[in-house]
Amino acid sequence: FKRVQISPEKLAEKIISGDVVALSQAITLVESTNPAHAENAQSVIEKCLPHANRSVRIGITGVPGAGKSTFIETFGKHLTSVGKKVAVLVVDPSSTISRGSILGDKTRMEELVKDKNAFIRPSPSGNSPGGVARKTRETILLCEACGFDTIIVETVGVGQGETAVHSMVDFFLLLKLAGAGDELQGIKRGIMEMADAIVINKADGDNKKAADKARGEFARALHLYPPKENGWTPKVLTASALENRGITEIWELVESYISETRESGYFRHKRMEQNKYWLVQTIEDRLKMRFYQDENIKRQLDKELLALEKNETTPFAAARKLLELWDR
Amino acid sequence: FKRVQISPEKLAEKIISGDVVALSQAITLVESTNPAHAENAQSVIEKCLPHANRSVRIGITGVPGAGKSTFIETFGKHLTSVGKKVAVLVVDPSSTISRGSILGDKTRMEELVKDKNAFIRPSPSGNSPGGVARKTRETILLCEACGFDTIIVETVGVGQGETAVHSMVDFFLLLKLAGAGDELQGIKRGIMEMADAIVINKADGDNKKAADKARGEFARALHLYPPKENGWTPKVLTASALENRGITEIWELVESYISETRESGYFRHKRMEQNKYWLVQTIEDRLKMRFYQDENIKRQLDKELLALEKNETTPFAAARKLLELWDR
Repeated sequence: FKRVQISPEKLAEKIISGDVVALSQAITLVESTNPAHAENAQSVIEKCLPHANRSVRIGITGVPGAGKSTFIETFGKHLTSVGKKVAVLVVDPSSTISRGSILGDKTRMEELVKDKNAFIRPSPSGNSPGGVARKTRETILLCEACGFDTIIVETVGVGQGETAVHSMVDFFLLLKLAGAGDELQGIKRGIMEMADAIVINKADGDNKKAADKARGEFARALHLYPPKENGWTPKVLTASALENRGITEIWELVESYISETRESGYFRHKRMEQNKYWLVQTIEDRLKMRFYQDENIKRQLDKELLALEKNETTPFAAARKLLELWDR
Repeated sequence: FKRVQISPEKLAEKIISGDVVALSQAITLVESTNPAHAENAQSVIEKCLPHANRSVRIGITGVPGAGKSTFIETFGKHLTSVGKKVAVLVVDPSSTISRGSILGDKTRMEELVKDKNAFIRPSPSGNSPGGVARKTRETILLCEACGFDTIIVETVGVGQGETAVHSMVDFFLLLKLAGAGDELQGIKRGIMEMADAIVINKADGDNKKAADKARGEFARALHLYPPKENGWTPKVLTASALENRGITEIWELVESYISETRESGYFRHKRMEQNKYWLVQTIEDRLKMRFYQDENIKRQLDKELLALEKNETTPFAAARKLLELWDR
């Protein structure tokens, strides 16, 4: 790893000057499980911080087959064509990313990957959703410091990652397919309520009519949802990434959302809340991990679970016992 | 407090024999903040446990004005008329229940309260949602041991209590009103996705047409939701508690749900999962409480939050600092 020998100061400087190779190196440090790398990564991030945060962060999710890669490619190309610098981070905490699938992801966005105003980075692999979330958030900061003003975070929409991604973006977009009951399959409960917009993708050819119908159905359904904290009513649009239709409208929608929430102060408020959320999450994950990984606790927990199963204790009595054991 | 002087063994015996006065006394012990009472409460519960758990637990929620009390009165009367023994627990963690509102609640169900096969108990007040949840769960067990085979837990639908109640019942029913945009008001996001059934209440008089329309809209909307873990598609019904219409159908729906899930094994599976949920919840609440109530942590947390606000640190770096402090 020759690339990690450069000093954190130097690396941060290069990132801030827009050096994408340095950015890649820093992300590698962030992803590393080597404690020495972790420390360097923190120094780089710290130096990048004053230059970060000036961006629009968009989360895009959808089941496999919803056409995420093609959509992001088309959407990303549109963004660079209007002068944006776009970073795409692909997050999939449920899979252990192999080198193969990394290349696979990149190839699927083969136009965008050649665009010098685009930066595509596959998911940091990790053995805990918390770890992946941290790495993704830190990667976002590095990309921002490097001058990328539009960050796209892609998730699969069927795993554990959506709440996490929802908690690190400004705008959350759900990609759907019309017809064939596709809208009922795979997507995790709760994700629809997170969406700031639903895009019915692949609204082309024979699919167009079904997509328009689905659009109406979802619009009516969303209307029945309780309003969002910021008063925003989620919008439903159709798009064809393949035929490059509807893409401009989606970006206009995102832009109007961003300017509306910037004006109202909600944009900044939400980012602050997200920071607090991650602070609290990180602390609590760690506190829990220590408890549950303790050998005595593990043994007693098994016993208590068995007693619960046999209806010989209550959850509260069992918890009390475990906590007393922990105190000793 | 003369009533707490009876021994836990004796109290449990009386409860199991169906003594409602003893049941009330035991619930008072459960609700007490006196540590000696808490210990006695645990003994009573332990002895009641083998007789508990044989019931159907129904959660009913809806915004103020949805007609919960009248609905539960009519629904409860129907249940006792078909031979059920019904316990109604009213949970409202957000309010500090005064003696006045307890009587208020009871008066609002003045028919049911006179029914000897019904038992109505207002919310255990408490200063934490976790505490209220524990007390409510323990009260459920006591009611079951006392022979109540149908437990209704009522919540307000606008507070923090719904997830908690959802995690302690077998069937979750959401009461809604038609028209006047009522369906958009007040109800917390996420609650619709929890519902096993939505009942459009007050479907009487001039309201009937609007209720039927709302029923269709909600049915279509629910159809767009991802399916539930157990394959159940939430149903939408209309009812008039005032005119006693639709009530039989709702109970039939609950019964068909219960027999379906009993057969598939999901009923038992869900109760076991709920037990584990409460075990884990209780432990984690306690671990967090200790951390956040520590004076050093409090002080440092304030500093880190300020640094976050000023963009001088990341949530993860701040968390690391706090955890290091905690370890010392």
